[in-house]
Amino acid sequence: MIITVVGLGVVGGSFVKALKGQGHEVYGIDIDEKTLQMAKNEGTIIEGFTDGKEIIAQSDLTIICLYPSLVLKFIKENKFKKGSIITDAVGIKSYFLEEAMTIIDPEVEFVSGHPMAGREKKGYGYASKEVFKNANYILIEHPVNQKECISFMERFVGTLGFKSVKIMSPQAHDEIISFTSQLPHAIAVSLINSDNEKYETGKYIGDSYRDLTRIANINENLWSELFLRNSDYLLASIEAFEEQLDLIKVALKDNDERLLKDLFIKSSLRREKLEK
Amino acid sequence: MIITVVGLGVVGGSFVKALKGQGHEVYGIDIDEKTLQMAKNEGTIIEGFTDGKEIIAQSDLTIICLYPSLVLKFIKENKFKKGSIITDAVGIKSYFLEEAMTIIDPEVEFVSGHPMAGREKKGYGYASKEVFKNANYILIEHPVNQKECISFMERFVGTLGFKSVKIMSPQAHDEIISFTSQLPHAIAVSLINSDNEKYETGKYIGDSYRDLTRIANINENLWSELFLRNSDYLLASIEAFEEQLDLIKVALKDNDERLLKDLFIKSSLRREKLEK
Repeated sequence: MIITVVGLGVVGGSFVKALKGQGHEVYGIDIDEKTLQMAKNEGTIIEGFTDGKEIIAQSDLTIICLYPSLVLKFIKENKFKKGSIITDAVGIKSYFLEEAMTIIDPEVEFVSGHPMAGREKKGYGYASKEVFKNANYILIEHPVNQKECISFMERFVGTLGFKSVKIMSPQAHDEIISFTSQLPHAIAVSLINSDNEKYETGKYIGDSYRDLTRIANINENLWSELFLRNSDYLLASIEAFEEQLDLIKVALKDNDERLLKDLFIKSSLRREKLEK
Repeated sequence: MIITVVGLGVVGGSFVKALKGQGHEVYGIDIDEKTLQMAKNEGTIIEGFTDGKEIIAQSDLTIICLYPSLVLKFIKENKFKKGSIITDAVGIKSYFLEEAMTIIDPEVEFVSGHPMAGREKKGYGYASKEVFKNANYILIEHPVNQKECISFMERFVGTLGFKSVKIMSPQAHDEIISFTSQLPHAIAVSLINSDNEKYETGKYIGDSYRDLTRIANINENLWSELFLRNSDYLLASIEAFEEQLDLIKVALKDNDERLLKDLFIKSSLRREKLEK
């Protein structure tokens, strides 16, 4: 198969690294020539292009790893091989797919996807096939998609190291993601921003604060796009979270040891079974 | 120096492991004989006791790694060597120290401490000297403490691998800890408890959700004690956090991209400088 990965950042870079040695002809497109050279030197791509029009026209699978708005631009500006499959790695789906499906050639299949294997660090240098290992993948089944293309993508993704591949509607994706990905980011940002800086905080932290604020280091352009395009689901997730936090406040105000213990027991059980 | 560590759980166990090879005579007290035998076999203690009255009377330094209420009980029931130092690892200080100082022999010095190197897993088996490496330590300077005993503890703790040792009042400790330790635990518990379980959550998570819920697996007896004994500071920390989360809600409701980006830029800068 001829596979072209568009955007060799931390996600696209991880794709080409995971694809190495799998028997495909892999090409890369990126605006940064040094990144392309690095990938070529490492043997993760056969050739790199800053303008990929020619290789795109020959590719059986195009994996677009760009920002949501740039994915749409890329689809508009390129002519894909008839019968080929395009996929992406965008973190929100409803808004984005609605627009993408109107501009895509009907003889090309767009199977949208979401590898749940992000990294805070940006760039090819931080990409690694290890981040895909045992990670989760979501594939989107849009009403216009052909079942066999979804199945093909499910098998393909399985070869890259992912442990679970789930297939769902764009709306279901955006709902669950507002809880499992966007809410944690909203929390991490709010936690570190609520520091009154009365003390030299870094000297009084353990792993709990480190872990909960790691993702507070956030790409503001990408994440403001993701948050604002999914604001209804995200607001609902924030409000459900606040209701639980209110229970802890009630327990503290009422000195209610039983309520507090019940909340802790519930959270412990849920955490233990989370990845079983 | 004769050093006795009381309670060879994950914290006490890490103390005896970090003390190995430092030239001290180290003893252990625990209610579990198997734990004592394991520590003795590993050479982290010379001898283990289930009743430590005799060894306590000879110890120059006693490190009590028990629950807050059990530390008080232990101090009441034992007779310490005159001129010796006692320390602990309890996560709250104001309430606890007030009571401890009234029952302690005036010829014995109680320098309270807090190694910020907890682990979610319990027991000696999960103890490791590595958890102390580059971690933070807080020593409490109570009005009755002698300066030279604080200085001694500062040097002693430095030999165990900790990167930073800060000295502060019990009140200052409880204030900063309500933010850096207790608030993250309240958040993690509320996050996982707010899951409506409509989807099989574990299949739709990445590292962000994993990291933010790791500490939701929480010892309900210990943490309800810590939360309720520090409820005023913790409530204030929760409220400051909620104010920041409200800003994100406002930005989402008003579709305010500028506000959202400003919050993300602020949080990113704070995270980057956190441990510099």
